[in-house]
Amino acid sequence: MSRNPVVAVCGATGAVGQEMLKILEQRDFPHSEIIPMASARSVGKKVAFKGRELKVVELTEDAFAGVDLALFSAGGSTSEKFSPLAAKAGCVVVDNSSAWRMDDNCPLVVPEVNPHDLDWHKGIIANPNCSTIQLMLALKPIHDEARIRRVVVSTYQAVSGTGHKAVEELENQVRRLMSGQPVVADVYPHQIAFNCLPQIDVFMDNGYTKEEMKMVNETIKIMGDPSIRVTATCVRVPVFYGHSESVNIETEEKLTADDVRALLAKAPGVTVVDFPEKKAYPMPIHAAGEDDTYVGRIREDETIPNGINMWVVSDNVRKGAALNTIQIAETLIERDLLRVPA
Amino acid sequence: MSRNPVVAVCGATGAVGQEMLKILEQRDFPHSEIIPMASARSVGKKVAFKGRELKVVELTEDAFAGVDLALFSAGGSTSEKFSPLAAKAGCVVVDNSSAWRMDDNCPLVVPEVNPHDLDWHKGIIANPNCSTIQLMLALKPIHDEARIRRVVVSTYQAVSGTGHKAVEELENQVRRLMSGQPVVADVYPHQIAFNCLPQIDVFMDNGYTKEEMKMVNETIKIMGDPSIRVTATCVRVPVFYGHSESVNIETEEKLTADDVRALLAKAPGVTVVDFPEKKAYPMPIHAAGEDDTYVGRIREDETIPNGINMWVVSDNVRKGAALNTIQIAETLIERDLLRVPA
Repeated sequence: MSRNPVVAVCGATGAVGQEMLKILEQRDFPHSEIIPMASARSVGKKVAFKGRELKVVELTEDAFAGVDLALFSAGGSTSEKFSPLAAKAGCVVVDNSSAWRMDDNCPLVVPEVNPHDLDWHKGIIANPNCSTIQLMLALKPIHDEARIRRVVVSTYQAVSGTGHKAVEELENQVRRLMSGQPVVADVYPHQIAFNCLPQIDVFMDNGYTKEEMKMVNETIKIMGDPSIRVTATCVRVPVFYGHSESVNIETEEKLTADDVRALLAKAPGVTVVDFPEKKAYPMPIHAAGEDDTYVGRIREDETIPNGINMWVVSDNVRKGAALNTIQIAETLIERDLLRVPA
Repeated sequence: MSRNPVVAVCGATGAVGQEMLKILEQRDFPHSEIIPMASARSVGKKVAFKGRELKVVELTEDAFAGVDLALFSAGGSTSEKFSPLAAKAGCVVVDNSSAWRMDDNCPLVVPEVNPHDLDWHKGIIANPNCSTIQLMLALKPIHDEARIRRVVVSTYQAVSGTGHKAVEELENQVRRLMSGQPVVADVYPHQIAFNCLPQIDVFMDNGYTKEEMKMVNETIKIMGDPSIRVTATCVRVPVFYGHSESVNIETEEKLTADDVRALLAKAPGVTVVDFPEKKAYPMPIHAAGEDDTYVGRIREDETIPNGINMWVVSDNVRKGAALNTIQIAETLIERDLLRVPA
C-alpha cells in the first residue's frame, strides 16, 4: 500500500475503543484518516484524537467503502454481522470479540508469539482474550525451550475487562459500603467490592466458564500445539486495571528458575520483576498503563520433576485488548499484508 | 475434670482474641472463669464477655497458676516464651501462632480432620495456619476416598488475616483513593487497595514465602501422609474477611465431580455451594461470620487422568483461627484430655 490506510475504530466509545484511539495516537499509527464508528445511539458523540474531536459515525453495512483497516471492539454479535461485510468491501478487520477466535479461517494472533499466522489471513484476524494474551507472552519462550506439557492457571481479573460500567459499579459499591449503605449489583451477579467472584462469562455444560475454556482453546491455537493441556479457574477481583495470573507449568525438559528468568528476560513484550529480597514482584497497580507483561515469583515446583510456578500481570485493557489489536495491525503493515486476499 | 475449667485468652485485645471471646460466648463454652490476658501495654483495657466487662491482666510468667486452659493468639515470640511456662504450670495451651506447629512434640489439629492427634499432646497443641485449615476440610474426604497425590493451590487472602491494623489500612487506602489522595502503605509493603499482592509473610531461600511453605508442610503433618505433594502461591487481595482458594487436585483413584460433591456434602464443617445455573458458588462476603468452609466450582480437570478443580472459601478469622482453636479445646474436654500429662 503506497498511501497511509484509512482506519475505522468500531466501538469507539467503549473502554477498549477509547484505549485504541489513545494508543493509535501514542504510537503515531500510520493513517490517512481515522473514522470512529459505533452503534446508532452513540452517533453524534465526539471522541478525542490528536487534539481534535472526531464525530462518531454509525456502524452500517455500507460504512466500510474506502476503509482499509477496521479495528473492532464492538461485541461478538456486532462483529459477527459487520466483520464479513467489511472484509467483503476490501477492508481488513482485526476483531477484539470472541466471535472469530476459534474460526479456522481466522488467525488468532499475539504478534510476539505467532506473527506468521497473519500470512494466511482471509480478511478477518482475531485478537485473543485478555487473560490468554498475557499468558502466551510468558509461556511461549518456555515452550520453545522445554516443551510445555500442562498448565494450571488461576486468574485474578480486573473489572475493567467488563467495560466502563463495571469500573463504575466497583467504584459505586465501594463508596456505598464505606458510608454504610447497602450495595446494588447490576453489571455482575454479585457484589464485587471487597469480594472475589469465581465466575467470568457464562457457564458451559462441563462446569467451566466460557472464560476458562477460552484460555484452554485459544492457547492451543496460538501456540499451534494441541499437545499443551491447560486447565483454568477464572476469578474476578476488586481491582480496576490489570489482570494477574498464578501459573503452574509442567515441562518436558527440566528448567531451573534461573533458566526461566533468563528466557523471559530476553522475551519481547515481557519484563521480569523478580526480586523477593526487595519485595519486588509484578502487581496490577504497577502494570496499569504499561505495554509489557510482567512476570515474577518464578520458582521451581518440586512436587513434579519439571515444574515451575510464576505470577504474570498485565494491563488487560491495553496489552490484553487495544494494544495487541494495534500491534497486529502494525505487523500487517510491516509484512505488507494489509489487504483482503482475492 | 469435675469442675468447669479456668480459661485464659492470651492476646485478648487482638483481632483473633476478640473473635475467641465472641465464640466462647456464642458456644457457651464451659468455664468457671475467663481471664483475658495481654502484654503490659494493654493492661487495664476491658473486653466484653456475656454482657460484662472483663479487665485485661498482664501475661506474665506467673499468670498461669490455677489456669486449666490457655487459648493463645499473641504472636510467635510471645507464645515461644509463655506456652512452655503455662504447660509447666499444668495449663493446657492451644496456640494460634506458627511457633509450635512443626514441633514434633505438639499435635497440629483440625478437629474434623485429625482429632486423634490430640491423644498424644504434651501440654501444647498447635492451631494450623488459616489457609491450611480450610484446605484440610476440603481435602480430607477426598484423600480418604481416592488418595491425593498432588495439590496446586492459589490463594486469595483477606486482610483480616494480618489483624486489625490491616483492616484499617485497606479502609484508609480506599477512602484516600476515592477522594483522589495518595495512599500510605504501612502494614503491607505495597498498596493493597484495588491491588493484588503476591507476598504473604517473608520470603524463604527457595523463593517461596513462609505462608506458602506452611501450606506445604502443615498439610503433610495434619493429614499424616508425607506422600501428599502440595505447591502453593499465596496472594493478598483487597477483601476484608474470608480467604478463597483455587485448588487443583490429582488423586490416585478416579473421582467424578459428582463423587466429590457427594463426599463433601457429608463432610463435617463443609457446605457445598455449587449451582452454576443459579450463579451460586462460595464467595468471601457470604463466608464471613460463618463457621463452615464452603466448596464450589467442582469440576473434573481433564488435563490429567484423575484431576479435580475446586474453589474453597472460609472465614479466615473464625474457622481459620478463633473457632478452630476453641473446637480443639472442646474436643480436649470431650475426650477428657484437658490436662498436661505427667
